[in-house]
Amino acid sequence: MAKSKFEYEREFEAADTCLPNCWVVVRVDGRNFHRFSEQHNFVKPNDIRSIQLMNRCAQNVMEELKDICLAYRQRDEYSFAFHKKSNWYKRRASKFMTHVVSQFASSFVFYWKEFFPDQQILYPPGFDGRVVLYPSEQNLKDYLSWRQADCHINNMYNTVFWMLVQRGGLTPAQAQKRLQGTLSAEKNEILFSEFNINYNNEPLMYRKGSVILKRKVNEISKKVIKLEGEEEREVEVSRLRNQFAILQCDVIGDKFWEENPDIIFW
Amino acid sequence: MAKSKFEYEREFEAADTCLPNCWVVVRVDGRNFHRFSEQHNFVKPNDIRSIQLMNRCAQNVMEELKDICLAYRQRDEYSFAFHKKSNWYKRRASKFMTHVVSQFASSFVFYWKEFFPDQQILYPPGFDGRVVLYPSEQNLKDYLSWRQADCHINNMYNTVFWMLVQRGGLTPAQAQKRLQGTLSAEKNEILFSEFNINYNNEPLMYRKGSVILKRKVNEISKKVIKLEGEEEREVEVSRLRNQFAILQCDVIGDKFWEENPDIIFW
Amino acid sequence: MAKSKFEYEREFEAADTCLPNCWVVVRVDGRNFHRFSEQHNFVKPNDIRSIQLMNRCAQNVMEELKDICLAYRQRDEYSFAFHKKSNWYKRRASKFMTHVVSQFASSFVFYWKEFFPDQQILYPPGFDGRVVLYPSEQNLKDYLSWRQADCHINNMYNTVFWMLVQRGGLTPAQAQKRLQGTLSAEKNEILFSEFNINYNNEPLMYRKGSVILKRKVNEISKKVIKLEGEEEREVEVSRLRNQFAILQCDVIGDKFWEENPDIIFW
Amino acid sequence: MAKSKFEYEREFEAADTCLPNCWVVVRVDGRNFHRFSEQHNFVKPNDIRSIQLMNRCAQNVMEELKDICLAYRQRDEYSFAFHKKSNWYKRRASKFMTHVVSQFASSFVFYWKEFFPDQQILYPPGFDGRVVLYPSEQNLKDYLSWRQADCHINNMYNTVFWMLVQRGGLTPAQAQKRLQGTLSAEKNEILFSEFNINYNNEPLMYRKGSVILKRKVNEISKKVIKLEGEEEREVEVSRLRNQFAILQCDVIGDKFWEENPDIIFW
Repeated sequence: MAKSKFEYEREFEAADTCLPNCWVVVRVDGRNFHRFSEQHNFVKPNDIRSIQLMNRCAQNVMEELKDICLAYRQRDEYSFAFHKKSNWYKRRASKFMTHVVSQFASSFVFYWKEFFPDQQILYPPGFDGRVVLYPSEQNLKDYLSWRQADCHINNMYNTVFWMLVQRGGLTPAQAQKRLQGTLSAEKNEILFSEFNINYNNEPLMYRKGSVILKRKVNEISKKVIKLEGEEEREVEVSRLRNQFAILQCDVIGDKFWEENPDIIFW
Repeated sequence: MAKSKFEYEREFEAADTCLPNCWVVVRVDGRNFHRFSEQHNFVKPNDIRSIQLMNRCAQNVMEELKDICLAYRQRDEYSFAFHKKSNWYKRRASKFMTHVVSQFASSFVFYWKEFFPDQQILYPPGFDGRVVLYPSEQNLKDYLSWRQADCHINNMYNTVFWMLVQRGGLTPAQAQKRLQGTLSAEKNEILFSEFNINYNNEPLMYRKGSVILKRKVNEISKKVIKLEGEEEREVEVSRLRNQFAILQCDVIGDKFWEENPDIIFW
Repeated sequence: MAKSKFEYEREFEAADTCLPNCWVVVRVDGRNFHRFSEQHNFVKPNDIRSIQLMNRCAQNVMEELKDICLAYRQRDEYSFAFHKKSNWYKRRASKFMTHVVSQFASSFVFYWKEFFPDQQILYPPGFDGRVVLYPSEQNLKDYLSWRQADCHINNMYNTVFWMLVQRGGLTPAQAQKRLQGTLSAEKNEILFSEFNINYNNEPLMYRKGSVILKRKVNEISKKVIKLEGEEEREVEVSRLRNQFAILQCDVIGDKFWEENPDIIFW
Repeated sequence: MAKSKFEYEREFEAADTCLPNCWVVVRVDGRNFHRFSEQHNFVKPNDIRSIQLMNRCAQNVMEELKDICLAYRQRDEYSFAFHKKSNWYKRRASKFMTHVVSQFASSFVFYWKEFFPDQQILYPPGFDGRVVLYPSEQNLKDYLSWRQADCHINNMYNTVFWMLVQRGGLTPAQAQKRLQGTLSAEKNEILFSEFNINYNNEPLMYRKGSVILKRKVNEISKKVIKLEGEEEREVEVSRLRNQFAILQCDVIGDKFWEENPDIIFW
């Protein structure tokens, strides 16, 4: 068989091991999601169905793949943090990113109809992914803070932008021009004085993004047993199980990390 | 805004540019597809529905992403070759592999029901992907030969194995034992003398895998035009368009490359 | 000028930035130093001239290159730790390793005659180098402990081996056979009972290797000044200066790090 | 022994294998050579002693290290091309670059006094190195053309600049201003009309740089032998030996490659 002659091809594959003792973050982004969201009639500035679908996909990723201790969503991007001590697939970068992104993509189509019962999915969407390493806990915390700060800036902009368009009657071009160079305080003021909206009362899910954690839960069930020479009786059986918690909260600051020490603890 | 303080996080992302002037091959593999194929009642040793679904997914990948000049399937793996001159996404390895693998995964669920009308998809499947660079045309040709040689070896084994189980009445363990250490000729002999099967008459699609190529086709359509001072008249309009060709053929040897010079030509 | 046509060559150079916030260790090893030491009549098992030469070279490396906070020698290898916050040459791995190794190599020939006044250097020696990243302080500490443990094992072996050869009259092959599979305690016992040597009294420089640190020293000098309308007078001027300290001590354990907090502090 | 506890440190070393079937070019550059050349009174614009020293160093690199098929010098940089089929040290990039740069650096000090008998070397010089991969022969040829084009541009500039300063009496700042924005033809004209120099008659070594090749030479020596039952007689013994050829010639264009096919041939 010609096997041996072509086996040399194997040597062209490069090693891409992630440095040990670093947090491995995989970030997934929708490809051309502006177009996708328009063609599927997403509500602007935030479509709750799409957020819930993405959260469902992320949960599936965390169920299927090992060692992910946290996931964070903002807009159409989702970040997954593998624990720094993970040795999953010998820490190969390509394994981390392709498993996450493909599981997310297939879940997106699979769960679509649960969240968009009245809107058919028109074509298979694409995603891109990347791997970034963070050596220290502080780097990991700052990563999440960075994404949440990004969420805040974009969501405030989009909230005012779409108010100006949807209720203010401006064209998108006019709304963009109106907002050019405005500071946070000015955007708040437009919302409040022109639309009677207090930005701080907007849903947390939009302002803060979504966090998914695994929490160990002590699940207690009842079971009937019969030991030799004894009567039949009911006992409680406890089992430690992973449960997913979806949070909308601040990840900037210490509080989040103090309340969720298990993220870091291995 | 806290933006500036966390911006330093951006610097942790490593450059992963693929060396210029090399063929970029992305190979996609089903994750736990043994289990997936059992739970979805795939016909053994080859399920034509699954092959056609994979070909449909690969075609979608080639439609959506740029610069792929060839794709090759064998079993549950699919290889995509980006042209060595491609500068798509500045040749970043993570872009190549995550775009391919996510597009393939979402297509797999999206097109499922076209090919499995009587079998519901039970859960979102996962895939893994990797990028390998090949500097010369010969390396690229040998890569495909390597995968096709692998296809041959596996398909012959599986063909005999499932004959022994399905028609020979052996258990999987017995069939495995029977085949241990047998050479190609011996497997051929079992097929022929016990099951009256000539392996060389088995479908090419199973023995050789599938190749997808893009071919430029000159599409001619008719159009009615009317120029000033002239009568209305019908003209032929020609437009160069990509058409996908799915082949089942030998890629080992020169013939394939001589017949398809456009793969290399840019 | 043909310049533009060949400028594309520049793009083949790959980025090799070291992950931020990690300690960058460059380890230098003598190439074929077994042969080099024989041809230059090095004293066995340890030649103090060679150790002092290597320490002089390492000091030159630390004078010439920025951000090295510690260097450690054992046998013919020298490790240099760049601070995790260093941004020297944008943290390019090739810059770190080639600058260190070339400076070390040119210093080795340059300072040779200071330490080997009676032995001419016969040919230019070669070295190899590598870069390794360590994300945490503990990883850095363990790195040094690892090298010092290696130093201990090798030095004990060599001490006994050369005693057996030089004073015990064994051939190298006999000495090697005698030591095969012996534990630390057994080697100690041979030294003590046969050669009346207490290994723990061997010079620290041999048993522990050499550490070089930079220490900030407040250098005070006197200067005569004359201010307008005043008499000429002498004043003390203080200037913070780097001074090199060469230590022979334990780096395994906390004591070393408690006594030298400046290594970590930036 | 503490060995096992710290062994995990080994896993932090990253693989850095060079892609197979690519030419591996190591480029060495003098560090702060402007300052070094001033402090050692180099003749401007070209110091033949320094060029010959560098050529001697490069030859030593080629003698000591395997698989280098060509070296090219221009100004204070030297490029070494390892053959694309080389498997030296399993093609580890760090091995290629640190061995070359350290051998070059130690040779530089070692051979200094042969070429600078009247000028002592004042301090150990540093060098930097990098590895670049080139997939095709054309890429390798274009690499050398690129460096030689760079040589031409710089040497012409420096030739005119130093003429203006040394014989024209301009200050360096004035000379720089005079040359700002001038084209090749204008520089040629200054040389010719003001200093009666035809640039094309300048030494090839300055205009083209230096190439070192290994050439297989059939070395024939005489030897007296005596076979049983025969008279003593003299025979010729031939032995294939590497000889170094230092050339000053064009590497841009096909002629050089046609005349030296052994560079590519393995």
